[in-house]
Amino acid sequence: MSKLWGGRFKKPTNKFVEVFGRSIQFDYKLARYDCFGSLAHIQILKDAGLLLPAEYDALAKGLKVIIQEIENDQFIPDFSFEDIHSYIQSRLEKDLEKEGFGEAALKLHTCRSRNDQVVFDTKLYCLINIEETASILSVLRDHLLDLAKKTAEQQIFIPGYTHLQHAIPVALGEYFHAYYEMLTRDHKRLMNAIGNIELTLGSGALAGTFINSQKYNQNAVKFVAELKSKIITPPSNSLDAVSDRDFVIEILSALAILGMHLSRLSEDMILWASKEFDFIDIDDAFCTGSSLMPQKKNPDVFELVRGQTGRLYGNLMNVLVVMKGLPLAYNRDMQHDKEPLFDSFKVIQQSLRVLAELLTNKNISFKTKNIENQLKDESLYATDIADYLVKNQVPFKKAHEIVGKLIALKYSGKEEEQLRDLDDSVLKEYHPLLNSKIIKQIINPRTSVESKESVKRIKR
Amino acid sequence: MSKLWGGRFKKPTNKFVEVFGRSIQFDYKLARYDCFGSLAHIQILKDAGLLLPAEYDALAKGLKVIIQEIENDQFIPDFSFEDIHSYIQSRLEKDLEKEGFGEAALKLHTCRSRNDQVVFDTKLYCLINIEETASILSVLRDHLLDLAKKTAEQQIFIPGYTHLQHAIPVALGEYFHAYYEMLTRDHKRLMNAIGNIELTLGSGALAGTFINSQKYNQNAVKFVAELKSKIITPPSNSLDAVSDRDFVIEILSALAILGMHLSRLSEDMILWASKEFDFIDIDDAFCTGSSLMPQKKNPDVFELVRGQTGRLYGNLMNVLVVMKGLPLAYNRDMQHDKEPLFDSFKVIQQSLRVLAELLTNKNISFKTKNIENQLKDESLYATDIADYLVKNQVPFKKAHEIVGKLIALKYSGKEEEQLRDLDDSVLKEYHPLLNSKIIKQIINPRTSVESKESVKRIKR
Amino acid sequence: MSKLWGGRFKKPTNKFVEVFGRSIQFDYKLARYDCFGSLAHIQILKDAGLLLPAEYDALAKGLKVIIQEIENDQFIPDFSFEDIHSYIQSRLEKDLEKEGFGEAALKLHTCRSRNDQVVFDTKLYCLINIEETASILSVLRDHLLDLAKKTAEQQIFIPGYTHLQHAIPVALGEYFHAYYEMLTRDHKRLMNAIGNIELTLGSGALAGTFINSQKYNQNAVKFVAELKSKIITPPSNSLDAVSDRDFVIEILSALAILGMHLSRLSEDMILWASKEFDFIDIDDAFCTGSSLMPQKKNPDVFELVRGQTGRLYGNLMNVLVVMKGLPLAYNRDMQHDKEPLFDSFKVIQQSLRVLAELLTNKNISFKTKNIENQLKDESLYATDIADYLVKNQVPFKKAHEIVGKLIALKYSGKEEEQLRDLDDSVLKEYHPLLNSKIIKQIINPRTSVESKESVKRIKR
Amino acid sequence: MSKLWGGRFKKPTNKFVEVFGRSIQFDYKLARYDCFGSLAHIQILKDAGLLLPAEYDALAKGLKVIIQEIENDQFIPDFSFEDIHSYIQSRLEKDLEKEGFGEAALKLHTCRSRNDQVVFDTKLYCLINIEETASILSVLRDHLLDLAKKTAEQQIFIPGYTHLQHAIPVALGEYFHAYYEMLTRDHKRLMNAIGNIELTLGSGALAGTFINSQKYNQNAVKFVAELKSKIITPPSNSLDAVSDRDFVIEILSALAILGMHLSRLSEDMILWASKEFDFIDIDDAFCTGSSLMPQKKNPDVFELVRGQTGRLYGNLMNVLVVMKGLPLAYNRDMQHDKEPLFDSFKVIQQSLRVLAELLTNKNISFKTKNIENQLKDESLYATDIADYLVKNQVPFKKAHEIVGKLIALKYSGKEEEQLRDLDDSVLKEYHPLLNSKIIKQIINPRTSVESKESVKRIKR
Repeated sequence: MSKLWGGRFKKPTNKFVEVFGRSIQFDYKLARYDCFGSLAHIQILKDAGLLLPAEYDALAKGLKVIIQEIENDQFIPDFSFEDIHSYIQSRLEKDLEKEGFGEAALKLHTCRSRNDQVVFDTKLYCLINIEETASILSVLRDHLLDLAKKTAEQQIFIPGYTHLQHAIPVALGEYFHAYYEMLTRDHKRLMNAIGNIELTLGSGALAGTFINSQKYNQNAVKFVAELKSKIITPPSNSLDAVSDRDFVIEILSALAILGMHLSRLSEDMILWASKEFDFIDIDDAFCTGSSLMPQKKNPDVFELVRGQTGRLYGNLMNVLVVMKGLPLAYNRDMQHDKEPLFDSFKVIQQSLRVLAELLTNKNISFKTKNIENQLKDESLYATDIADYLVKNQVPFKKAHEIVGKLIALKYSGKEEEQLRDLDDSVLKEYHPLLNSKIIKQIINPRTSVESKESVKRIKR
Repeated sequence: MSKLWGGRFKKPTNKFVEVFGRSIQFDYKLARYDCFGSLAHIQILKDAGLLLPAEYDALAKGLKVIIQEIENDQFIPDFSFEDIHSYIQSRLEKDLEKEGFGEAALKLHTCRSRNDQVVFDTKLYCLINIEETASILSVLRDHLLDLAKKTAEQQIFIPGYTHLQHAIPVALGEYFHAYYEMLTRDHKRLMNAIGNIELTLGSGALAGTFINSQKYNQNAVKFVAELKSKIITPPSNSLDAVSDRDFVIEILSALAILGMHLSRLSEDMILWASKEFDFIDIDDAFCTGSSLMPQKKNPDVFELVRGQTGRLYGNLMNVLVVMKGLPLAYNRDMQHDKEPLFDSFKVIQQSLRVLAELLTNKNISFKTKNIENQLKDESLYATDIADYLVKNQVPFKKAHEIVGKLIALKYSGKEEEQLRDLDDSVLKEYHPLLNSKIIKQIINPRTSVESKESVKRIKR
Repeated sequence: MSKLWGGRFKKPTNKFVEVFGRSIQFDYKLARYDCFGSLAHIQILKDAGLLLPAEYDALAKGLKVIIQEIENDQFIPDFSFEDIHSYIQSRLEKDLEKEGFGEAALKLHTCRSRNDQVVFDTKLYCLINIEETASILSVLRDHLLDLAKKTAEQQIFIPGYTHLQHAIPVALGEYFHAYYEMLTRDHKRLMNAIGNIELTLGSGALAGTFINSQKYNQNAVKFVAELKSKIITPPSNSLDAVSDRDFVIEILSALAILGMHLSRLSEDMILWASKEFDFIDIDDAFCTGSSLMPQKKNPDVFELVRGQTGRLYGNLMNVLVVMKGLPLAYNRDMQHDKEPLFDSFKVIQQSLRVLAELLTNKNISFKTKNIENQLKDESLYATDIADYLVKNQVPFKKAHEIVGKLIALKYSGKEEEQLRDLDDSVLKEYHPLLNSKIIKQIINPRTSVESKESVKRIKR
Repeated sequence: MSKLWGGRFKKPTNKFVEVFGRSIQFDYKLARYDCFGSLAHIQILKDAGLLLPAEYDALAKGLKVIIQEIENDQFIPDFSFEDIHSYIQSRLEKDLEKEGFGEAALKLHTCRSRNDQVVFDTKLYCLINIEETASILSVLRDHLLDLAKKTAEQQIFIPGYTHLQHAIPVALGEYFHAYYEMLTRDHKRLMNAIGNIELTLGSGALAGTFINSQKYNQNAVKFVAELKSKIITPPSNSLDAVSDRDFVIEILSALAILGMHLSRLSEDMILWASKEFDFIDIDDAFCTGSSLMPQKKNPDVFELVRGQTGRLYGNLMNVLVVMKGLPLAYNRDMQHDKEPLFDSFKVIQQSLRVLAELLTNKNISFKTKNIENQLKDESLYATDIADYLVKNQVPFKKAHEIVGKLIALKYSGKEEEQLRDLDDSVLKEYHPLLNSKIIKQIINPRTSVESKESVKRIKR
């Protein structure tokens, strides 16, 4: 468990402190990115004349062996080390000593600090995980668009809701398309987060290093297949670079908003799967039962996704609080950025994956009979009746008042009156332009939906 | 991986869903409490005539075997199960079948639901972990009180601060005593949380069960050594009982406040350990170094504790968000209560433990010379000068104005004037009652501290 | 705009800073409590010989005039002052000067600091507002209990839900009683918060004052009619007393949990008011319409209450963040405690008041026909069928499996099979104990509800 | 107090509900944007043939009168209205009736809903307030850059800190430049937020309107001088458009991060203003005093800014919570988005303004003597000594160990040894390359700072 420091210390670290400060149990996830960072770093050292070519080669080889192990799922760090950086250093020392390059390993940490290293690693982790998240997100977006288009083709209409009350009929496709739009904004926000990340090396502990910044123009692409166009630069300001966690918070915020969208989608699906709505049937493979009630088939996936929101919000709050009021530059508090970051990515990627599986025509089926029953609610067409009057020169506010009274009539009797059954004579009392034939034409979901021309429709 | 449900399902659960909904990777921590709950439950079943005495004995024996394993750290659940409840059920089925009581195991879940079970388990977990937390907290409180008393004995005085500016001298002991007081309130809040927990069984899934509530008067003490006086009762309202997570939130809130106190204590210690304050020396065993800067000895423990605040706040927010707007009764979202709860207890217990180790006379030493240097700052005694005038009938507001001007003089020249060096003639211009002798008497930390009689002092 | 300080300052405060730091625009709400605190303080000064009896009388008279103005809604502070404490001091100076007691007013602030004063005022504000909140809360609790009892009398049953899926029938009264229970816990938490507040005077700025603590045994009851049994004590620790905001956070947490309960109640009511559930009708006076859709009648009150949760959570987070990492003792950051505190009390009191108005038999009517339609869902009785088997010695897990398959049959055909229509021969294939007569007996909401004997029922 | 709805209602709104749901007390801030939206809307109505040219002219004139009033600070809405939209509608009805265009006013709300309107207004409010915020932010950034350059010119060096411990000397300018860099990222995030806002009209209540989307290509620039390039478009999806609050959350998140940066800057300044650091003097005009302690001069501005963080975080959490789990489309909960949004903009703009005033060479002066005293701490140069060895081929890890031991020596004796006073013989024991001359050369802040070539320096 050799440490990267210790010369000035006269006592070993207290056992409790050792455990308390240890981060390897979570930062081992950075191992691959740490090796990539070291690959970049040794090239800088070589270019600066601080590593001989042979030393460079030995180190590069040693690092690539570890990368290979990680990528093959064969990498098992020793969890008694302080952090992953210390472990990889120690591992390289051992590996290189065998090959007669022990001295080279001792040079690896020249002109760098873990402060710099951990920022680099975490940024690389973020870049790759944003790409990964965006890619699963795109699958879900495709499925939503697909559902939108298919139900549009099938001409399924559904009551639109505001305040969870029947409002105006809409195409079912518009519902899924609304979520598609939200997720499209999420995608954009993730891409903005990538754009805001500067991948730097050369901050040292906080003050920079003696290697000239000219040596730092490195291209990360060389090492990291997943990265498309990010380059490594020396920092504009090294105090800032080692103590900046904006990128973590910006990502956690984007993921929290994304999670919020998924919670809304889930809420709609949970409502639709209730016995009272009964608009959808979810495939058995995506539901679970009850240990007590034999009949139960619960929409657990949607509930779990909705509940994850708490975690995503909590993780965001966590790092915001950690950073509040910290003086420059690096403070150890910042070590607490990683667990919430890793957790939010995990939670979101899982949620997206399971929703992408579930939200397909195959696994969600629409109970059109029940939906159509709800579309018979005549109040859904009140706005269309008012629009009819408006198109015939009745000022809107008057039209609104007239139709409001007509609806009030509907709810006034012992038995609910059907508007479509009202006599012309009754209707004319409300407005001369109203008659039974017109009302019957208007009360039709398709007519209603197709009359709305202000919106760019999804292509059917 | 047998489930507790499935009869009505025509398809196996989707692989992603299986992983997504699984909770055994964290709720295995409830195993012991789950067995205690089952012990109570089978006694109810026996009393209600739903278990034969021999069946009861077989189940009780089976459960006690598992409890023993857990307490001996030999319990390893199969992590492919849905949750710990399913695993323990399955384990009992296997164990009892061998002994010819397979049928008995199938009766265990009679008249209960995981909804009821998980609330019971979690409450038991909370009760025991609050006790544990309170006990470590008491050790830290003892150490703080000890530091307070020892430094009081040693008559160490220190500048008191408001706005991080020198205010009035205080006894160093008062500092540690202030934190002792905060932690005493935390202790009280934890005890209140215990008082607010009702340990219920008998809610079924949400509607109760057919077993008469008279059968439910059980005493948990019988099974759980750590519990002193909690009894098990049937719920006042079963819909509420299965969907109540107030106790989780109340605890997370109490732990967040406790964490906030620790963050403040840590901030003070970090300041005092800085080169500029240089009031304390922290033992090497509680500090860490830098991978780049050989001289560094950092107060990491205090920084890590301060940073934990984010986590404790985030966990509180997490569960508050989970519960927002959920309809009655149980919803699967609630499964997300456990990880933040477990995490906050872990974080706080670790922090308390490491601080209790660190905050002793042995590991924190006071650099009295540096502290005394700061006490020479004459502005610390301005209030005492005003008090002297007040005691001699000068209205306070005038006295404040006079001393304010005297201090302004001090800061007006090129060289800072010492009040103690001012001639009587100069002082008299400010107020006839002022003279050099009086000023010299007043400018003394001990005199200042001992003149404050409004506060109940800690016993020296 | 005279300030309570300034002697040492050579420049007036910058205009922006003046506005930025001003708190009178919100802390004017403390005016009454500030006067009560001053009444207590002058008695201490008199007892300590620092005020002559005549001065005391003049100040007491002056303060009582202001209190009277506040209670008569005639008090209008000058909002250009720094804070309410400065304004009241200035006001007293003017009032007393007219009566020849100008000097007395200048003595008012002897041995006290705004740090001490603001904590006292805020605690008094909290005590009185908790009482006020608890009293409105009790009205709502009464109404919920009343609804619970009335619907119990009327024997209205309703589907119980878990995962928003039909679970088991419950008495409608149990629903309202569940919320009653939640609010009862909230009440208890508020009372605990009162118990945790120590009303102190005598901390000075942070170090105490020269007045002996024996002088401080004052009884607040004398001045504040609303306070029943709180007394004023000198602080155990003065550094802690001026910098403690636990009481604010504890209250904000209790109000956040209360708000969460109201959000759940609201969610249930919003669902029940939807066209698809259609279980309740809300009186017109408690709904609002749409500017566009003439038919709309929206359950806005419940939506607004549900939405308030964000505010209550945000206010809690606010003060937790403010306090994180602050060194001892008072820091100006703490001024930010009041707006969230005032806001949460306002929000909760409004929500409770409007819900107490709304949640009565008069304003919520139950559409029993629609509810009964839902109770026809046979899956609601699956657990009761399993229970029937259990009571006849079928191990529960087998009974669960059998009934699960029976339910699966129900959902397998093109047309949904009614369990009550199945032939004995079909039923017997599932279990010999099953037959059509038994099934028909079991499928009855009243039978189902009354069979649940584990729960202490509300008295009908 | 005429409402925009009511036809179907048989009862007036309950008094409590009226107050509870009212938003005009805060949404009056949208008045100007609401009028701009109406100007755009009537042009659409005219183009669609739903308003006669004369009606359009009358409405446009009426709206411009109101805009003029607002811009002249003469606009006083009637606060008994439900919201600002209702008030402006009513106001127009009255104004136009006088001019014989009463009918036209009743047409204003044709084909629109407040759901659509409030999103438009809020987005416009956001766009303009982001611009305003960015512009104040730029002033502060300029001042920070100016401080950075001036102190760079003056060659002021300062100890760099990690863990609040002396690390390595840095140029004071780098400190201010670090904050400049943070605020530059904030600026970028605000610009991204502008880019993510789509300014839409035409969603109706949720389903769109019967006006063809071709009519909607309007240019907001015509009405709003502050808007540079935003255009108005019909929504891609109208359900999403009326229920999207991403833009609010994204802005609140960007402002929370900005506030966090300001809290860190404030922390540094508060530390530097303490007696123990004593690095800066803040102008009297930016400090405040104490009501009790005559000598106090507190850095309140920085404390207040640091404390604001709670508010900014709380506001972010607020809206995130409001939106969690809301089904489509608009729900009344969303009304709660505005107060936190308005508050965060106010808080940030105030903080930026007051900091921009304060953070100038005129108001912050540097106590270079005290700073230089701290630079004498030899441990600050330990890394430079190690670097010297590294440049001379000692592997870094060995160099780190050697210098660590040298530093340990320094702290081992009763009196602290000065490295610069050590004999060559002692130094050589640590490494042959070390000698007194070299050590003396290295221990120099300027040499240290200038040796760091990895960082792109700010131009002096």
